[in-house]
Amino acid sequence: MPAHAGLYINVEGKPAVDVRFRVRFHETDAMGVVHHAAYITWFEEGRSEYTRVAGFPYSRMSDEGVNLAVIDLAARYLRPARYDDEVIVTTCLEETSSRRLTFTYQVCRLPDRATLATGSTSLVSVDAAGHVMRLPDAVLATYRKAGRG
Amino acid sequence: MPAHAGLYINVEGKPAVDVRFRVRFHETDAMGVVHHAAYITWFEEGRSEYTRVAGFPYSRMSDEGVNLAVIDLAARYLRPARYDDEVIVTTCLEETSSRRLTFTYQVCRLPDRATLATGSTSLVSVDAAGHVMRLPDAVLATYRKAGRG
Amino acid sequence: MPAHAGLYINVEGKPAVDVRFRVRFHETDAMGVVHHAAYITWFEEGRSEYTRVAGFPYSRMSDEGVNLAVIDLAARYLRPARYDDEVIVTTCLEETSSRRLTFTYQVCRLPDRATLATGSTSLVSVDAAGHVMRLPDAVLATYRKAGRG
Amino acid sequence: MPAHAGLYINVEGKPAVDVRFRVRFHETDAMGVVHHAAYITWFEEGRSEYTRVAGFPYSRMSDEGVNLAVIDLAARYLRPARYDDEVIVTTCLEETSSRRLTFTYQVCRLPDRATLATGSTSLVSVDAAGHVMRLPDAVLATYRKAGRG
Repeated sequence: MPAHAGLYINVEGKPAVDVRFRVRFHETDAMGVVHHAAYITWFEEGRSEYTRVAGFPYSRMSDEGVNLAVIDLAARYLRPARYDDEVIVTTCLEETSSRRLTFTYQVCRLPDRATLATGSTSLVSVDAAGHVMRLPDAVLATYRKAGRG
Repeated sequence: MPAHAGLYINVEGKPAVDVRFRVRFHETDAMGVVHHAAYITWFEEGRSEYTRVAGFPYSRMSDEGVNLAVIDLAARYLRPARYDDEVIVTTCLEETSSRRLTFTYQVCRLPDRATLATGSTSLVSVDAAGHVMRLPDAVLATYRKAGRG
Repeated sequence: MPAHAGLYINVEGKPAVDVRFRVRFHETDAMGVVHHAAYITWFEEGRSEYTRVAGFPYSRMSDEGVNLAVIDLAARYLRPARYDDEVIVTTCLEETSSRRLTFTYQVCRLPDRATLATGSTSLVSVDAAGHVMRLPDAVLATYRKAGRG
Repeated sequence: MPAHAGLYINVEGKPAVDVRFRVRFHETDAMGVVHHAAYITWFEEGRSEYTRVAGFPYSRMSDEGVNLAVIDLAARYLRPARYDDEVIVTTCLEETSSRRLTFTYQVCRLPDRATLATGSTSLVSVDAAGHVMRLPDAVLATYRKAGRG
């Protein structure tokens, strides 16, 4: 049973969080489909929702001086999303070390659940000067608890 | 004669600053032309260049704790810009009071100089808590000097 | 009584449509608040929702070769939105002529309903070559019906 | 000697193309640095410049019905870019097959030439219906010629 409202166990047995929204018109480009950079902001929205559900919203992080910086990003594009499509971003936490968090993402279109894109991002904790630091214990504990479902 | 490299006197006798760049693909939308919100970022780029030329770059402002917040915005769209078009944003400073700066913008396409859009933004100085404050004297003096050409 | 689910009569007696979402992190800027251009995309999202509720989604318009181009835009910024804020965009249709639609917007923050920004956009119908044309009767009828509540 | 103005041979002996611009304010986020998704649009700008220099601008491609869709993307972030920084994107063409083009990117900051980010994207040619098709011979020949320097 998920530890938190919104967290569920996916078909691979991993805790996952969904966020659902419609494609905005400004996210499209002159090829008539969603621009590939928009998916990167959707991944972030998935990660935000995961963090919210895990009980440690980004907004609280920034109040406590924790900045999570993306250091690595990968995306694969399978089918285009179009304006007005309803999409779901499913986010899992793949790796939780004291220095690095890795999230994976799957973007599906509704209602047919076709996968449009997949991706992953790794993040590190940086202080105000931009130096990599150990993830604060409270952040780590929150993610580890969520990551166990 | 302009007081600063980059500042020139336009046909209406006002100091003006130009910045020139190409339309980026991600700025287009599914109608095949540049999305109307992209012009707002171009106005900002025009204002940035004006400020740079006037000798008080935004980057220095933020170091000194000066935040200029847009409080009012207007834009008129005449002709669409397209991907790869080269455009020029011409920026003038219309109003310089101790509490408010108003910039106007004209976006032209090269090489035919057709006007694509015009606009204006008004900005106020806000402190870290977001309260409106008097513009710092150094900022005001810089703009007034530039505004006189 | 509203003609459509989602349309309601606001305090000024006008049909209105609400759309609600959270501020995305990428919409913020280095001043720590939402960038002023992001509101323009929120206005568009409000207009999209209005159009969807009125029964003539943008996606159908584009299938039928109707392009609505923004020709005029105004925005006033009252208070900053921040990352993770939940906001509501309320959209009304102010003007429906055979050549021009004018929408007005109010962006409020939840839960305190403070108004963050207001704005308006005027749109015209353009053909594939970008020439202004009369709004198609079906589009006009849909909007007029919605605009009467 | 480069085959085209703008193409040069880099230290690894590969043809490369540079494009140079300033960071725009709207590209920053509330962490005070450039948002990671902005680099993806910079990679695209590098690719656009490469294509322009190679003699087959994207704008001509779209006139001829050629759409190049990104199917794969990777980015690594080393140091943050900040507002007003001047950056250079260096683009190389790593792979040119009849079905796939792979570009690599390096983003450096001026004047110290520190590398801020690196990345790669793979693109395929799609027809109007979105089906993958062989790259048109003229496109392929242009890229192959450029790729030989």
